[in-house]
Amino acid sequence: MIRLDDLQIDNLKIYQDDTLYNFSTDAVLLANFVNFSSKSIVVDFCSGNGVVGILASSKNFYKKIYLIEIQENLAKLAQKSVEYNKLENIEVINDDLLNINNYIKNESVDVVMVNPPYRKQDNHFISENEHFNICNYEIKINLEQIINKSNKLLKFGGKLFMVNDINRLEETIILLNKNNFKVKTLQIVQPNINKNANVFLLQATKGAKSGIKVLPTQFLNDENGNYIVKVKKGKNER
Amino acid sequence: MIRLDDLQIDNLKIYQDDTLYNFSTDAVLLANFVNFSSKSIVVDFCSGNGVVGILASSKNFYKKIYLIEIQENLAKLAQKSVEYNKLENIEVINDDLLNINNYIKNESVDVVMVNPPYRKQDNHFISENEHFNICNYEIKINLEQIINKSNKLLKFGGKLFMVNDINRLEETIILLNKNNFKVKTLQIVQPNINKNANVFLLQATKGAKSGIKVLPTQFLNDENGNYIVKVKKGKNER
Repeated sequence: MIRLDDLQIDNLKIYQDDTLYNFSTDAVLLANFVNFSSKSIVVDFCSGNGVVGILASSKNFYKKIYLIEIQENLAKLAQKSVEYNKLENIEVINDDLLNINNYIKNESVDVVMVNPPYRKQDNHFISENEHFNICNYEIKINLEQIINKSNKLLKFGGKLFMVNDINRLEETIILLNKNNFKVKTLQIVQPNINKNANVFLLQATKGAKSGIKVLPTQFLNDENGNYIVKVKKGKNER
Repeated sequence: MIRLDDLQIDNLKIYQDDTLYNFSTDAVLLANFVNFSSKSIVVDFCSGNGVVGILASSKNFYKKIYLIEIQENLAKLAQKSVEYNKLENIEVINDDLLNINNYIKNESVDVVMVNPPYRKQDNHFISENEHFNICNYEIKINLEQIINKSNKLLKFGGKLFMVNDINRLEETIILLNKNNFKVKTLQIVQPNINKNANVFLLQATKGAKSGIKVLPTQFLNDENGNYIVKVKKGKNER
């Protein structure tokens, strides 16, 4: 069943479908983490139902945001949400990320954001639903391809924002370095103050010098087990 | 002036000299972080006045701990402390780490621990005291040499424990991967819950498969500004 959910910011709403992949906490974390400015050309890789792009559009000025999603049913939901919210400078592309040069030139993008599939394809699938599996596992695209494509699309000095499973942290840093990026900002995410981290957020810059800032660790729940991640309100300044 | 300080664990004491480099919080963090077992051959690189090795000896069983320190006056303090505490299986080597093969064979060590100089040699020296500068800056040895030496000395499956400045995190991960290590455990350290991280601890294993665990972030001070790092009591089990 398709439903229209309230994003609890700027009256934005989003279409979701229970038979498909609904957005997660990590998408909200990523949307809170990204920042870009009014002249920015932004691409959201693996955009799913469009939640990261739509949330990020409400808190940042921008010139254009492209959402690229390989699964047609998710891309259609994203398109419906973009239209419902009257977001004129967001364009949904329903295609394989590997074909992105049919739509966007290399070295023309300021910001890439991505909430990629977390698990390698060789992991045991936890679902029999192919739609879920494509979102969760590296079936259609893997981390190396995502980072490689980011490098090609971004201008020199362009920024990549990513959320990923903590297990991929070391590999992500290695791949970023192989692809002309340096990690500029890292944030570790823990379920609570006493538990091992499960997720990380990072921002890497193409062609930058090294010099990392590690933000205060983010906790998903407070000491009483209350969920404390909120959609960040207000506009980033630039 | 040389003084004898109480390490507040197992009646251990340590000689320190105000005109030399005294041990820091980070040495205590590293000593709390390391663990090894009764058959372990352990080497503490850049051991200074010996604090990491002496603290680690009190909470772990071990076969032998070598402390290697290039500065004669610090190595002498370490030797005095080892003798004072009657630690028979700790041996102090006063030499350049690059000469370590004159004392210890390659592929013969189970554990390396290191609290290395944090700053590159090209940074502006903050002190005119050469003794301090050798401890703080990569004058005599750099991170790449330390990681390279660790790889050579360690057996396959051997462990490297390191504390370092958060600015060196990305470079450390890259260098470890180039030198046959995978990061198995990482811990971020923040001055308090609201501040950016300033230090990290990690354990990397030679020849391991990737798979990282990120421990709960460690805070140096509580919300009221009280310093909360303590020397860990009790013996690790193995």
